[in-house]
Amino acid sequence: MDMLTFSIDERRRTPLYRQLYDYIKKEIRSGNLSFNTKLPSKRKLSAYLNISQNTIQTAYDQLIEEGYIIPIAKKGFFVNRLDNILSLDFKIEDKPINKNKEASDLKYDFSYHGVDHSSFPFSIWRKLTKDTINEYDEDILKPGSAQGSDSLRISLAKYLRQSRGVDCTAEDIVISSGTESLFQILIQLLGQKYIYGIENPGYEKLNLLFKSNNTKFKTINIDLNGMQIDDIENSGADILCITPAHQFPLGGIMPINRRIKILNWAYENDNRYIIEDDYDSEFKYSGKPIPALCGLDTYGKVIYMGSLSKSLSPSIRVSYMVLPKLLLKKYKEKMSFIICPVPTIDQKVLQKFIEDGHFERHINKMRNIYKKKREILVEALSEIKVKIEVVGADAGLHLLLKVDNGMSEDELVTKAHEVGVGVYGISNYYYDKASLDKISTVLLGYASMEDDTIKGAINLLENVWLPEK
Amino acid sequence: MDMLTFSIDERRRTPLYRQLYDYIKKEIRSGNLSFNTKLPSKRKLSAYLNISQNTIQTAYDQLIEEGYIIPIAKKGFFVNRLDNILSLDFKIEDKPINKNKEASDLKYDFSYHGVDHSSFPFSIWRKLTKDTINEYDEDILKPGSAQGSDSLRISLAKYLRQSRGVDCTAEDIVISSGTESLFQILIQLLGQKYIYGIENPGYEKLNLLFKSNNTKFKTINIDLNGMQIDDIENSGADILCITPAHQFPLGGIMPINRRIKILNWAYENDNRYIIEDDYDSEFKYSGKPIPALCGLDTYGKVIYMGSLSKSLSPSIRVSYMVLPKLLLKKYKEKMSFIICPVPTIDQKVLQKFIEDGHFERHINKMRNIYKKKREILVEALSEIKVKIEVVGADAGLHLLLKVDNGMSEDELVTKAHEVGVGVYGISNYYYDKASLDKISTVLLGYASMEDDTIKGAINLLENVWLPEK
Repeated sequence: MDMLTFSIDERRRTPLYRQLYDYIKKEIRSGNLSFNTKLPSKRKLSAYLNISQNTIQTAYDQLIEEGYIIPIAKKGFFVNRLDNILSLDFKIEDKPINKNKEASDLKYDFSYHGVDHSSFPFSIWRKLTKDTINEYDEDILKPGSAQGSDSLRISLAKYLRQSRGVDCTAEDIVISSGTESLFQILIQLLGQKYIYGIENPGYEKLNLLFKSNNTKFKTINIDLNGMQIDDIENSGADILCITPAHQFPLGGIMPINRRIKILNWAYENDNRYIIEDDYDSEFKYSGKPIPALCGLDTYGKVIYMGSLSKSLSPSIRVSYMVLPKLLLKKYKEKMSFIICPVPTIDQKVLQKFIEDGHFERHINKMRNIYKKKREILVEALSEIKVKIEVVGADAGLHLLLKVDNGMSEDELVTKAHEVGVGVYGISNYYYDKASLDKISTVLLGYASMEDDTIKGAINLLENVWLPEK
Repeated sequence: MDMLTFSIDERRRTPLYRQLYDYIKKEIRSGNLSFNTKLPSKRKLSAYLNISQNTIQTAYDQLIEEGYIIPIAKKGFFVNRLDNILSLDFKIEDKPINKNKEASDLKYDFSYHGVDHSSFPFSIWRKLTKDTINEYDEDILKPGSAQGSDSLRISLAKYLRQSRGVDCTAEDIVISSGTESLFQILIQLLGQKYIYGIENPGYEKLNLLFKSNNTKFKTINIDLNGMQIDDIENSGADILCITPAHQFPLGGIMPINRRIKILNWAYENDNRYIIEDDYDSEFKYSGKPIPALCGLDTYGKVIYMGSLSKSLSPSIRVSYMVLPKLLLKKYKEKMSFIICPVPTIDQKVLQKFIEDGHFERHINKMRNIYKKKREILVEALSEIKVKIEVVGADAGLHLLLKVDNGMSEDELVTKAHEVGVGVYGISNYYYDKASLDKISTVLLGYASMEDDTIKGAINLLENVWLPEK
């Protein structure tokens, strides 16, 4: 063909070369420029459109790069065959995804999920990410190492040794995404034939996880100090899943003598293991810090699990575990098909975040912020005229409220929702509801509540929970 | 205390407030400033150190924020209790992680893993990431939706419909990290009681994955067109795992009549399913594009799997699958404990990358780049004096080389390694080695090879593979 009937729009912000590239691409895709058509020479087109030959060269180069045209020496530029060239049109409207909108009409949501939004170190994270995506760093394009990057595991090992008393090295750490995926790995590693003992009440998804893995589990009732040895023995469980630092959801901190008893239980049999889920141990507000149970273990019977969901954000999707030497050996033999699911770039950003001291500062800052939220919440609760008791508020990001006003748990939750306040019934976390306390109890997470809204939300609860006279 | 014995170093690049903050923090941690010690007032310290009160205020604010000191109204600033304050020291040297260094002494590596490094769109990825980490976007701190973000799934659905002929909507898509994790989910979803039929030769880790899940599998020999129906029937398999677009590793493209036969096999029984792993379908170099097998399926028997490992980078850790309606329903009921493992920020970046047209351009550009690499490789191979045959080079990022020089596969690989060239024996991919071809065959991946090194590498192979006279 001799010329292109293309008109430049100089007012558009799109660069000229891009307008030309878009136009020719569209003409090729639509079939107006068919296979083997010769494009005008750069010189001719430049004169015709009154734009520089450089601009045309840039447009042609991009078309060549993407396979729309091919240059033939001394002959010019020809339209290529369209076979296999990807052509996507994103203008097609898609029907939106249907969903059950929960909690969307809540004005105040004491959800357990989420973190304080306004305190996330956005600018640091942005800068570290920008610095990490470095085109001279080939490593960020390689598949991650199986257990997670060496440097991130070295950082995590230092953190765990110094802050949680976990005696580990980087080699013992396996990084994954979320507590669920760690459990999935462990069930395969330890074997499906064992019986898992889980806390009642406890983390609400563990039962689904074990069922989905065709694995037997027993729920074991807990008191304020955790599982009792007699109940553990009676359950026949081989592997315990516990939250000693801050029982979820009751909030108890397991005392040292119970810890030692549980360890001794594990030492009695080769098949026994303890999975310690240390999900929110960063946030303890009073008293001395209590090291992880894992730090007391001298025979490699405790598998330590941690996560950045509470300390940083659940959207980061990073969790990790420390495997005892024997299990680590088995993991390397049996589970070599697993590649760490955290993108390589994210692993690098996180490692810098920890190593440059940002993580330490962030945790210390957040502990103060959450401590203040907790104080505002506890104070607001102390002033309401409903008979209540606050439980499990010494650590973590939630507390329990026993409400002794004659209402059922369901009524408490429904009435709160009616005035736009989200609170959550404790029975959701009981696998075996027989051991539920007679006094209705709800869970209030406060991490994502704003300080100045807490009092108002509690006043709303007071209004709807006050027993009628 | 009256004053701090602190000396400012004005030559350091560290800001003054930071020097003061670091100093006081160190003094508190070391115990030199003990609990309840009063810090000098801002005014006094400002006069003493000859720095502005603002600077001191900034340092004190950060110490307050992180919990090292507490302000008491009208009294001043006091050292806080150190309980629970996180203090990390990253100066402790850690012993490096031991590893078996493989392939490190290779000068040229025809590894199947990896992508072309120099063509990754670093600057676009950096810009999109920077734009995504926006402090006014609360969504990036929330845990991802279970199946992956709606907008990313909408983008992927459009891509799959337009480029692969997969009849799907965003609701049918489950996003995960890596093909392994998709298989882990599917084994739980479909059930461990079924027998999985896997290609022989095939993806080298599937056997470990099924073993680890206590799930039965049978290997089924393939010809150039894929599995044969008789062999499938004889195997007793319920669920087939196949790579019709480009068989891995043999490279065959399954023709339409075989596709229809396999679909009909699946239609015969309710328990039967086909898992179609479309791992590198973006790269087909000649002939018409062939839509996914899934697009032919009218009864919801094909589970389509895709990945960005080849088209973008394996380090991104993004894979996805399209579930037939019945399985989708079961997934929602049974697997609700799974949260999409891809970090929320990464999902957003990827969605923008696809929707803004970068993905389309990247694929088209990479197809050209890989096509050229393949041509250089095939030409270099055509010139060597060793009797060889090139197989499976019409698509994908690797080809097979049948080398008829009397050497065993092991000899071919070892001799290549001795001159610093990495090639990989096909027998690694055979679960059942009885069906291995008599002519020794090696696999050459070329995605991460640089154009101008290919010829030299092949010449080295020629030297060591030439039969002695």
